[in-house]
Amino acid sequence: MTLGTVHGVGLGPGAQDLLSVRADRLVREARHVAFFRKAGRPGQARRIVEGMLRHDAVEHAMEYPVTTEIPLDDPRYNACLSRFYAGATENLARLARSGEDVVVLCEGDPFFYGSFMHLYTRLAGTVPVGVVPGITGMSGAWTACGAPMTWGDDVLTVLTATLPEEDLARRIRDTDALVVMKIGRHLAKLRRAVAAAGREGEAWLVEHAAMAEQKVTRLGEAQAVTPYFSILLIHGQGRRP
Amino acid sequence: MTLGTVHGVGLGPGAQDLLSVRADRLVREARHVAFFRKAGRPGQARRIVEGMLRHDAVEHAMEYPVTTEIPLDDPRYNACLSRFYAGATENLARLARSGEDVVVLCEGDPFFYGSFMHLYTRLAGTVPVGVVPGITGMSGAWTACGAPMTWGDDVLTVLTATLPEEDLARRIRDTDALVVMKIGRHLAKLRRAVAAAGREGEAWLVEHAAMAEQKVTRLGEAQAVTPYFSILLIHGQGRRP
Repeated sequence: MTLGTVHGVGLGPGAQDLLSVRADRLVREARHVAFFRKAGRPGQARRIVEGMLRHDAVEHAMEYPVTTEIPLDDPRYNACLSRFYAGATENLARLARSGEDVVVLCEGDPFFYGSFMHLYTRLAGTVPVGVVPGITGMSGAWTACGAPMTWGDDVLTVLTATLPEEDLARRIRDTDALVVMKIGRHLAKLRRAVAAAGREGEAWLVEHAAMAEQKVTRLGEAQAVTPYFSILLIHGQGRRP
Repeated sequence: MTLGTVHGVGLGPGAQDLLSVRADRLVREARHVAFFRKAGRPGQARRIVEGMLRHDAVEHAMEYPVTTEIPLDDPRYNACLSRFYAGATENLARLARSGEDVVVLCEGDPFFYGSFMHLYTRLAGTVPVGVVPGITGMSGAWTACGAPMTWGDDVLTVLTATLPEEDLARRIRDTDALVVMKIGRHLAKLRRAVAAAGREGEAWLVEHAAMAEQKVTRLGEAQAVTPYFSILLIHGQGRRP
């Protein structure tokens, strides 16, 4: 009996033709397709591949048991998510042990702040696992801005807006180019940190990069509420002939 | 007369099936294909698309006039490269004005430390320019390592090894996850900086990510000379349930 492979497949920032050729082939040929989503929502990864799946594909929705109801620093949050990932891992491993390949849909790049990593580390060494890198959401965002991101010796710092305000301000001050992910409910704090670093005039907010509803706004003009998957950018201005 | 478009097309880290579907289509259909290379070398971008071009594609090799013969801080370096980019820009603009589309081959992602950016800023506003993001070389590198790169609140810092040793050491100490690009002749300095930051045990060197000759080595075991396109990585170890 040959074991199946669990493929973590990066889908890129959101446009179907920004999947890699390898990812496109895996997704279209997959008999089993798994993806994360919030309960009651279609799921962004699943949305990206709409219309691409085989008519007989079996879909395995992995629904997060909690998202924002329990604070991150509550031990119950970790315990709850840990059980969830262990269960999802066991389902995928069972499919692989029965000889079936499974494609796990991953927004962006699977190894860059991706939920698939929690399955990957649990599956590694038990069944074959493959990873297909993808175009990151941040690449989609800086392409949407229409301005190059890093020049010459520019330092790029990637932060999550979940960090404390002082950390954000210090690191925003100390970098050439900047990407901030996971903005969600942290926009007001992030805006204060960017201001404290004296860089409001350089900051852009990109929502739904590479998708039909793509929107690029100066931070100063952004609304108070932005989706979790919006990205803040400051472009490097380094050496150039 | 309709103007042609100059497309800066990200090719990803090196494997043909890691081009995006959009990039793959543009490359295969292109009548005019332009790419940078060192004089007398095939050029890495051109190598990636070997066998993909139309039989009647016209190839426009843009050969760097200098690479390492003149120091970066010599004013002649900038003047020489500036003339070179202006000339290359004029050639592409002339094609676009005559109604021809041109695909400019870009390793990785065009807006991430890419030479195409020097053409982009000169072309913008004169002829139509499009950019197709690509999978970055660093995504290829961390996928090659088989270990997730950034978890939870991890801070990722991307540096070029061309920075002064003290800057490197300070920034390597002050980050969770690390990528260092443009290593080339700076490996000895980079190794000292990683050691000064106390992180030798965590550092990996990836050469030729995603290509047949891909090689992943612990920094401590790396040879003294590595190709310009090798990448150093330290993986984040952030929060995970």
